[in-house]
Amino acid sequence: MFDLNLYLVSKRKQINLFLENLLKSYFDCALGSRIYDAMEYTLAGNGKRMRPILCIAAAQAVNGKTQDVIRAACALEMIHTYSLIHDDLPAMDNDSIRRGKPTCHIAFDEATAILTGDALLTFAFQTLSINKAESGKRIDSHRLLKVINRIAFAAGNGGMVEGQMMDVFSENRNLTLDELEKMHNLKTGALISASVYSGAVLGGGTDGQIEALEIFAKNIGLAFQVKDDILNIEGEPEIMGKAAGTDIIRNKSTYPLVMGLKESKKFAQNLVSSALKALDCFDNKAEPLRHIAGYIIERKK
Amino acid sequence: MFDLNLYLVSKRKQINLFLENLLKSYFDCALGSRIYDAMEYTLAGNGKRMRPILCIAAAQAVNGKTQDVIRAACALEMIHTYSLIHDDLPAMDNDSIRRGKPTCHIAFDEATAILTGDALLTFAFQTLSINKAESGKRIDSHRLLKVINRIAFAAGNGGMVEGQMMDVFSENRNLTLDELEKMHNLKTGALISASVYSGAVLGGGTDGQIEALEIFAKNIGLAFQVKDDILNIEGEPEIMGKAAGTDIIRNKSTYPLVMGLKESKKFAQNLVSSALKALDCFDNKAEPLRHIAGYIIERKK
Repeated sequence: MFDLNLYLVSKRKQINLFLENLLKSYFDCALGSRIYDAMEYTLAGNGKRMRPILCIAAAQAVNGKTQDVIRAACALEMIHTYSLIHDDLPAMDNDSIRRGKPTCHIAFDEATAILTGDALLTFAFQTLSINKAESGKRIDSHRLLKVINRIAFAAGNGGMVEGQMMDVFSENRNLTLDELEKMHNLKTGALISASVYSGAVLGGGTDGQIEALEIFAKNIGLAFQVKDDILNIEGEPEIMGKAAGTDIIRNKSTYPLVMGLKESKKFAQNLVSSALKALDCFDNKAEPLRHIAGYIIERKK
Repeated sequence: MFDLNLYLVSKRKQINLFLENLLKSYFDCALGSRIYDAMEYTLAGNGKRMRPILCIAAAQAVNGKTQDVIRAACALEMIHTYSLIHDDLPAMDNDSIRRGKPTCHIAFDEATAILTGDALLTFAFQTLSINKAESGKRIDSHRLLKVINRIAFAAGNGGMVEGQMMDVFSENRNLTLDELEKMHNLKTGALISASVYSGAVLGGGTDGQIEALEIFAKNIGLAFQVKDDILNIEGEPEIMGKAAGTDIIRNKSTYPLVMGLKESKKFAQNLVSSALKALDCFDNKAEPLRHIAGYIIERKK
């Protein structure tokens, strides 16, 4: 019987330990400790580690090992964290609380926050481009280049940068359902897809397996965001580590606003069903992915 | 007889054309046009293209072709441009003129400037990780990964991020000569070295050739910065496209301030001599590099 909670706790532990060691290697080459301190501050804490866990679980689904992909998994968390730091800046969302504590530019200062984001983004690619699987196995260089390219695309024009741009410039304006979906696919979906893709490719998946996992990822990526919108209305700030109700205050377009709260929940449920269907061709090694899909809409934070 | 001016003009033209085509491919995948407009705005203009030209000239020195490295060369210019955009932000140097026109956050806005920097940094790695030489030749994937790793290191903890951090936090405080050299090696030297390294590695250089070119790069990298400090005192703002005298106003530590103007010029000259000496083992295919070394301390902008 698969225990998701045990799985998440154990994977988070592995990821946090590996991230800590990577940060030490950053520090060994770096000058001072302020950027390091800010990287450590923002990476630490009670992050869900959803992207690295999806990367690892996707690798497992195609018979790969955690050690084959833990490096890429940690790079994905760095990219996610960089985006949070920059999105929180005064010129963007101007958020002061994140993951239950002051945001980077509040805890440090704005210049440090900008540079820490830059450092995390850069360090992610530095980490990715070292062809050294912790299993001792050598990753196929061609596959590794494909993963780097996909992650860069998801972080840039194919995803996060364009999504954040759309988000910033659509405050105080009503988005249509199509625009909302486009924004979320860019802002959140692209990196979630890239996480699943990276695990599948580095784990040695076949083209058919990678294709099926892409469909899975697209569906849970959107479900994840719909649930985030729902949590912004129904969530408990103490559990989430961030304020609730902020979308309404900012007059942001969200799924509950556009299609109603009840319909949003049904929509998220349907997305998860489609995601699970895409996993039909996998055996029980895909159990972690199946349970994560359910967790995405049941989570409280 | 080698004509440096002709060489620089012709290489700049090739680089600008390739950059333009890369940007079009960015636009094809991107949502809106504002980030694209800001990327185009900051990349265009009268940039020296020093880093991509060094990359190309280093490739030529080891018998490589421009087409083998033009992709990496353009990625280096994107990284350089990203760093200028972020360095110019109000929270950092707060500069309003760059390359003869308003800086990105003045011409657009702060959120767009932060995201455009992020987009350029990310797009650089996206560009680098496509294994497609314009000559039709396939680059060795292992060499390409080494180049990506080195460029990420130079942009991050092994260079620009740490250098900028040191720069921001050392305003209004006198640096020692050692600290000044360290800061410049990080802020400017690391990416210049990475440019030469990338050209040498992707151009197919031997270990011995790469090693000699690393010594060359280290020397011209520092000479470049010493000359920049000198130009900040002696340069003509109309020729440079940026204000002069700003270092003194900001009470920044510079070579002329620490060792005197005359000594700084001599120091730059000695660095160039050491750089040229490192090229002794190369034949006339290294002529572009030799002339660039001289140009670095003779330039007016």
